Amino acid sequence: MTKTDMKVFEELESEVRSYCRSFPTVFTKAKGYKMWDEAGKEYIDFFSGAGALNYGHNDPYMKEKLVEYILSDGVTHSLDMATAPKAEFLETFNNVILKPRNMEYKIMFPGPTGTNTVESALKLARKATGRTDIISFTNGFHGMTIGSLSVTGNSFKRKGAGVPLQHVVTMPYDNFVSDSLDDLEYLERFLEDRGSGVAIPAAMILETVQGEGGINAARFEWLQRIEAICKRWDILLIVDDVQAGVGRTGTFFSFEQAGIKPDIICLSKSIGGYGTPLAITLIRPDLDIWDPGEHNGTFRGNNHAFVTATAALSYWKDDTLERNVQEKAKVIKATLQKLVDMYPEMKGEVRGRGFMAGVASEIEGFASKVTAEAFQRGLIMETSGPEDEVFKLFPPINIDDEGLEKGLHILEESVKSVVGAKELVGS
Amino acid sequence: MTKTDMKVFEELESEVRSYCRSFPTVFTKAKGYKMWDEAGKEYIDFFSGAGALNYGHNDPYMKEKLVEYILSDGVTHSLDMATAPKAEFLETFNNVILKPRNMEYKIMFPGPTGTNTVESALKLARKATGRTDIISFTNGFHGMTIGSLSVTGNSFKRKGAGVPLQHVVTMPYDNFVSDSLDDLEYLERFLEDRGSGVAIPAAMILETVQGEGGINAARFEWLQRIEAICKRWDILLIVDDVQAGVGRTGTFFSFEQAGIKPDIICLSKSIGGYGTPLAITLIRPDLDIWDPGEHNGTFRGNNHAFVTATAALSYWKDDTLERNVQEKAKVIKATLQKLVDMYPEMKGEVRGRGFMAGVASEIEGFASKVTAEAFQRGLIMETSGPEDEVFKLFPPINIDDEGLEKGLHILEESVKSVVGAKELVGS
Amino acid sequence: MTKTDMKVFEELESEVRSYCRSFPTVFTKAKGYKMWDEAGKEYIDFFSGAGALNYGHNDPYMKEKLVEYILSDGVTHSLDMATAPKAEFLETFNNVILKPRNMEYKIMFPGPTGTNTVESALKLARKATGRTDIISFTNGFHGMTIGSLSVTGNSFKRKGAGVPLQHVVTMPYDNFVSDSLDDLEYLERFLEDRGSGVAIPAAMILETVQGEGGINAARFEWLQRIEAICKRWDILLIVDDVQAGVGRTGTFFSFEQAGIKPDIICLSKSIGGYGTPLAITLIRPDLDIWDPGEHNGTFRGNNHAFVTATAALSYWKDDTLERNVQEKAKVIKATLQKLVDMYPEMKGEVRGRGFMAGVASEIEGFASKVTAEAFQRGLIMETSGPEDEVFKLFPPINIDDEGLEKGLHILEESVKSVVGAKELVGS
Amino acid sequence: MTKTDMKVFEELESEVRSYCRSFPTVFTKAKGYKMWDEAGKEYIDFFSGAGALNYGHNDPYMKEKLVEYILSDGVTHSLDMATAPKAEFLETFNNVILKPRNMEYKIMFPGPTGTNTVESALKLARKATGRTDIISFTNGFHGMTIGSLSVTGNSFKRKGAGVPLQHVVTMPYDNFVSDSLDDLEYLERFLEDRGSGVAIPAAMILETVQGEGGINAARFEWLQRIEAICKRWDILLIVDDVQAGVGRTGTFFSFEQAGIKPDIICLSKSIGGYGTPLAITLIRPDLDIWDPGEHNGTFRGNNHAFVTATAALSYWKDDTLERNVQEKAKVIKATLQKLVDMYPEMKGEVRGRGFMAGVASEIEGFASKVTAEAFQRGLIMETSGPEDEVFKLFPPINIDDEGLEKGLHILEESVKSVVGAKELVGS
Repeated sequence: MTKTDMKVFEELESEVRSYCRSFPTVFTKAKGYKMWDEAGKEYIDFFSGAGALNYGHNDPYMKEKLVEYILSDGVTHSLDMATAPKAEFLETFNNVILKPRNMEYKIMFPGPTGTNTVESALKLARKATGRTDIISFTNGFHGMTIGSLSVTGNSFKRKGAGVPLQHVVTMPYDNFVSDSLDDLEYLERFLEDRGSGVAIPAAMILETVQGEGGINAARFEWLQRIEAICKRWDILLIVDDVQAGVGRTGTFFSFEQAGIKPDIICLSKSIGGYGTPLAITLIRPDLDIWDPGEHNGTFRGNNHAFVTATAALSYWKDDTLERNVQEKAKVIKATLQKLVDMYPEMKGEVRGRGFMAGVASEIEGFASKVTAEAFQRGLIMETSGPEDEVFKLFPPINIDDEGLEKGLHILEESVKSVVGAKELVGS
Repeated sequence: MTKTDMKVFEELESEVRSYCRSFPTVFTKAKGYKMWDEAGKEYIDFFSGAGALNYGHNDPYMKEKLVEYILSDGVTHSLDMATAPKAEFLETFNNVILKPRNMEYKIMFPGPTGTNTVESALKLARKATGRTDIISFTNGFHGMTIGSLSVTGNSFKRKGAGVPLQHVVTMPYDNFVSDSLDDLEYLERFLEDRGSGVAIPAAMILETVQGEGGINAARFEWLQRIEAICKRWDILLIVDDVQAGVGRTGTFFSFEQAGIKPDIICLSKSIGGYGTPLAITLIRPDLDIWDPGEHNGTFRGNNHAFVTATAALSYWKDDTLERNVQEKAKVIKATLQKLVDMYPEMKGEVRGRGFMAGVASEIEGFASKVTAEAFQRGLIMETSGPEDEVFKLFPPINIDDEGLEKGLHILEESVKSVVGAKELVGS
Repeated sequence: MTKTDMKVFEELESEVRSYCRSFPTVFTKAKGYKMWDEAGKEYIDFFSGAGALNYGHNDPYMKEKLVEYILSDGVTHSLDMATAPKAEFLETFNNVILKPRNMEYKIMFPGPTGTNTVESALKLARKATGRTDIISFTNGFHGMTIGSLSVTGNSFKRKGAGVPLQHVVTMPYDNFVSDSLDDLEYLERFLEDRGSGVAIPAAMILETVQGEGGINAARFEWLQRIEAICKRWDILLIVDDVQAGVGRTGTFFSFEQAGIKPDIICLSKSIGGYGTPLAITLIRPDLDIWDPGEHNGTFRGNNHAFVTATAALSYWKDDTLERNVQEKAKVIKATLQKLVDMYPEMKGEVRGRGFMAGVASEIEGFASKVTAEAFQRGLIMETSGPEDEVFKLFPPINIDDEGLEKGLHILEESVKSVVGAKELVGS
Repeated sequence: MTKTDMKVFEELESEVRSYCRSFPTVFTKAKGYKMWDEAGKEYIDFFSGAGALNYGHNDPYMKEKLVEYILSDGVTHSLDMATAPKAEFLETFNNVILKPRNMEYKIMFPGPTGTNTVESALKLARKATGRTDIISFTNGFHGMTIGSLSVTGNSFKRKGAGVPLQHVVTMPYDNFVSDSLDDLEYLERFLEDRGSGVAIPAAMILETVQGEGGINAARFEWLQRIEAICKRWDILLIVDDVQAGVGRTGTFFSFEQAGIKPDIICLSKSIGGYGTPLAITLIRPDLDIWDPGEHNGTFRGNNHAFVTATAALSYWKDDTLERNVQEKAKVIKATLQKLVDMYPEMKGEVRGRGFMAGVASEIEGFASKVTAEAFQRGLIMETSGPEDEVFKLFPPINIDDEGLEKGLHILEESVKSVVGAKELVGS
């Protein structure tokens, strides 16, 4: 392959493509937290496939298991027929993840994407309650198909629907209006007043840390009060843990530390472990009132992903990984705070939880300049937030000290460079 | 694994599971048109992953390419960053499929499922035309997320939405009402009369052969008239070739013989070749007015699928495969017609095109009994149609004579057995 | 008042005004079938307030009763409090109209406009069945508020909504597609096929003769089959008799001759008798499951209208009026047919039933020219149909021979004049 | 008439009837602030037809004009043809109301009910802006047809729709959540954040004092900030002055004292003056972009109402009436405050503005008991609020001292009686 390769994408791929515009090079190889392009240039990956590669690229153990399975002519694609790897995944997930956390859920396999698990959750919540509306939260992101897009806050993405998005009421996420305003008092007033125009919804859907919406981390107390409100009004609580789950915030599920028990949990992205497409919907057993086939999808039986997902769960047999995230998260936070303090010109604010961290800058375009600069210096990062106002760090959760330090160092240099450039003054 | 394995699914998997109920055994291995369960029993697969395994299971060439790629630590997951396998797929698809057919389309990668490509097509049609409504057709099936479900006809599946499905007008598919009724005269009247209550839609979406809806094959003349109507009214024509495409009906695209040129084409299922999740949306270049990222999905960069999809395209460098399907399709059709003639008790009608064939029986429950009997005898088949009134044959399109004969023989024995059983009388 | 008066409307009234553009003069007085403008010019009224003045203008008996009531300080406005005139109307309507026809219905008073009774009917049908969709028919017109507009066919009026109109499926009205096509076979197929995309609706709503939609009269057999289909599927049948009811087609209710029994009947326009605003919704007693106040409207207790409505019912104590309409309708029809035969250039077709008659012309703009010409000659008539292709005769149903003859004569002269004009050739 | 009369309603009228249940007697005569039933019992009317009888019953001057018009055979019903009384109304309204207030608006006549003017306003706002959503406010009431019901807050009424109500976002009305919460900060955050899930709407619609929603009076500063927000975001401001307008709050339009200029104003109820059905929509001239007939209604040309409406405007030629309301309003307020202070048991709060006043009680059922007691004692009043928690005073705005005192006295006695009853303790 040669430099002309980017032309292939310009000529043949739809204008909808986006990341290849921010990272304009052709990638050929990846390992752990590193990627290489066709020219052999090495990159540190603080993007992690937008949360789909929490274990880094091409983890050796998963890779071994996957190749072994393929070579043995194991069933690749099976819809929802019973296969050995699916049985193994079900049992392992139950034994390693659910049981130790004292959680009891039925496991559903929708089509293998985040938006498909969200669509399945919304359908089931409506079926189980007989109600139609869903409460979602400002700056929530739940996917791009019409059902999920309805509960997504971003106006650019909503407008893309081409039709009005219905059956949803958006309420303020924690700290949306201001620090002093009690958003949940507002929400409760709407529910309790029969003249509020807001009907009791089937469910509330939320992320505990909003990944696309600006790395906003809800306080645990807020999550607990949300759970209490749901209980009081008999509303189902759906936690969309597609991006914040699978260890990203320091525990397997992002809500563990808050001590809440969602009725339905959406997982995708890193649940497959290896970047292999998979999604699961966890359902409180008494809510599992689906008729057979009432929701489905052709690739819901992606056995390659079952194999890698099962292998990935070996990371969770003890707390080594969790401790890694929790400890290194302090380093990340300290580094970001240091940057914010050091460069008041960027009017920055540190955001996030665990390995889902970032800095919001009030300077228009600042975050994009930082990620562009970082890419030049060999660090892959993306922006987040309704105005792309946040630069976002998503390192693999199993990254080692060296990788983290190198990445953070490039980030520091990039911020310094952008702050130093003349253009910032004019922004 | 032992017989207790099915219990795993009953205990841990959601009630939504369905095929594991029709085919109650744990599959472990597969090769070409054969599958084996944990007990070592061999099955002939006339199901082909509901059209996702047109090349059979674990094709050796694709497998070799895939394992080679994995072992080389090629990038597995890349969102829509540029990677070498994606470039190769784009070029190969353009050179092997599009150019020789004199087709020019931009290629979009939505999330890797059929419903996601349909959602992207509907969004784009609405954006490009500024209109909201879509005309779909009776018994069409396009997916289970809210956008796709809106254009799906099946009432059980629609009801699952839990919300009213909007912005769609359903028109009669070819021969829906009766042979004598000209359904398109009806459709045109609705479009031309300003008092019809039906606004000019953004698009029409259809399958040329309806897979889930009862193996209904639209006549080529009907498809040509649909195209002419779309042109007359400046309506976009979307062909959902997720199930009927990739060779299933005898040509790569199902609409080639009809000589029509859709504005947007949806592909998924077998486009990945190996059962690996992939979906693409082909867009008439001047309609490719997406803003970057206006539609997206985490697993739209599934490089394993790019590798196998590219390998699969080697089947299309000459017409061997097409001829195989077209010739063997005659054998299938003749066999089915023979069965219908031999057993008038089943009140059967042969349906379909190419390797997308079936028999509709007016006897309630007949088709399900045939597929159950076939499974006992080692043949995997499913039913189709709003009342499961069709037993459906979906052999791999590269099946050899021996496989086809063996499968058809089991089918014949199964039909004979069901017809002979006393219960039929009582139906 | 002087000629400057029309300026008042141009300067102060909204652009939405329409009839004052077709009939550009200021009316001051009216009696029976006659109107006079400020210049003293006399007009024959074949418009009858679009069906709200079936008894002509200012009927002496109703006038006497109304003035008497006003002078006695009878309650004018009472919401739905009990008043003497309301009691009298209820009893009289029951005794004079319902009982003799062997009809049993509860009487509801929505806001005093046609669209309000339709809105109440749709709400109740949805409540009683628990379903959301309504089947309406091509070229149906039911009103301009969002609920009624949803079941209205006209695209110009629908577009005015500014939002997508939902929860409705439009089916072909009798003879919509062509004479040879059996539209109801089509409708039934949609209902019986579980894959048709059309759910069993709460109700069907229709006019037996479409007033705004082009003076289309459904055949009695068609209405009877509609009733049978509704019964078969447990769908409520709503007859919107706002325009065709109260004697317009030759019987009090327009559907009497068809022998059908609607579940809900909408009446307005001429039910008040004197042009006084009133609307009623007749409800099959077991469907009267409203909660108190679940639908309401400030002017639902318009006692002036109760007084005139009761007085108007004296017309129905014997069959004199009905015979008048039925006999004179033959004269109207014969005259129209004569015109169509005499002037083949206008490519005309006679339409309608009773005193709801018209001629559809295939020549673009012809009908509008005829009504404009007629106005010049002292006859007030309007056009109808999605393209204004029909000139429409709506004489008062109690018109005498002289009035009818004079009006028809002017019409004949007007048609002759338009046909003779050179412009027609070029149309 | 005899006592059996109420049976007529029970037997023949729909279950939807409501006020005849609260006021179970048959009314026969009315004059000014007094009503009489068939037994000759006299009542003081503090209900005023829910705001449709601001000038009391059967005002002598309007009555004279109306009878004169009827006797002269003036046109009664004219759709939107030009008539002399309509011209006179247009000119008088412009000269007496609009010009002196320096207001320039085009006048539209929708169907003659409050809900019809609201529907027309929403349509026009959507057409003028090309947007679909409307922001309405908690406990707003705008009507019972689907468009108006969509922007109404009450859950009982919304549920009656039988379909989901769309294209609306409900925001908190002034003081909805609590005194300390700044609701408009909240609203603005939603508008300015591109991730809030709330699109810039076509319009906001509000009442300055909520009549049905609990006699909530928005502060003038709040209304001014709403206007500023609308201007900032180019959102149309619709004031629904159907209930609060025509002098009810002390000025002709309820918003005059706040100094705001709505883009569209909805009037009905007392605009006809005599209880005669009429509604008008006032439109900022540059927004008057209707096509002719794009919205209409059969009874939009109710000339009896034009006659009485014009006569009623004679009340507004000087400020006598306004001063009467403003002065007597102080008496009402003082009386209510006295009651609240005297009977802390009722946990009351005085609400409202001008002659739109009431007391909200935290004691469940208290307000209903008061109105029932008052009725027994000859005073007609209704309740308001989502839980009927407010007893509401709506005296005619031209009431004299004697009438007001008598009514207030009965109210005081009624409250005293209810407070004294033992049941209250148990509530």
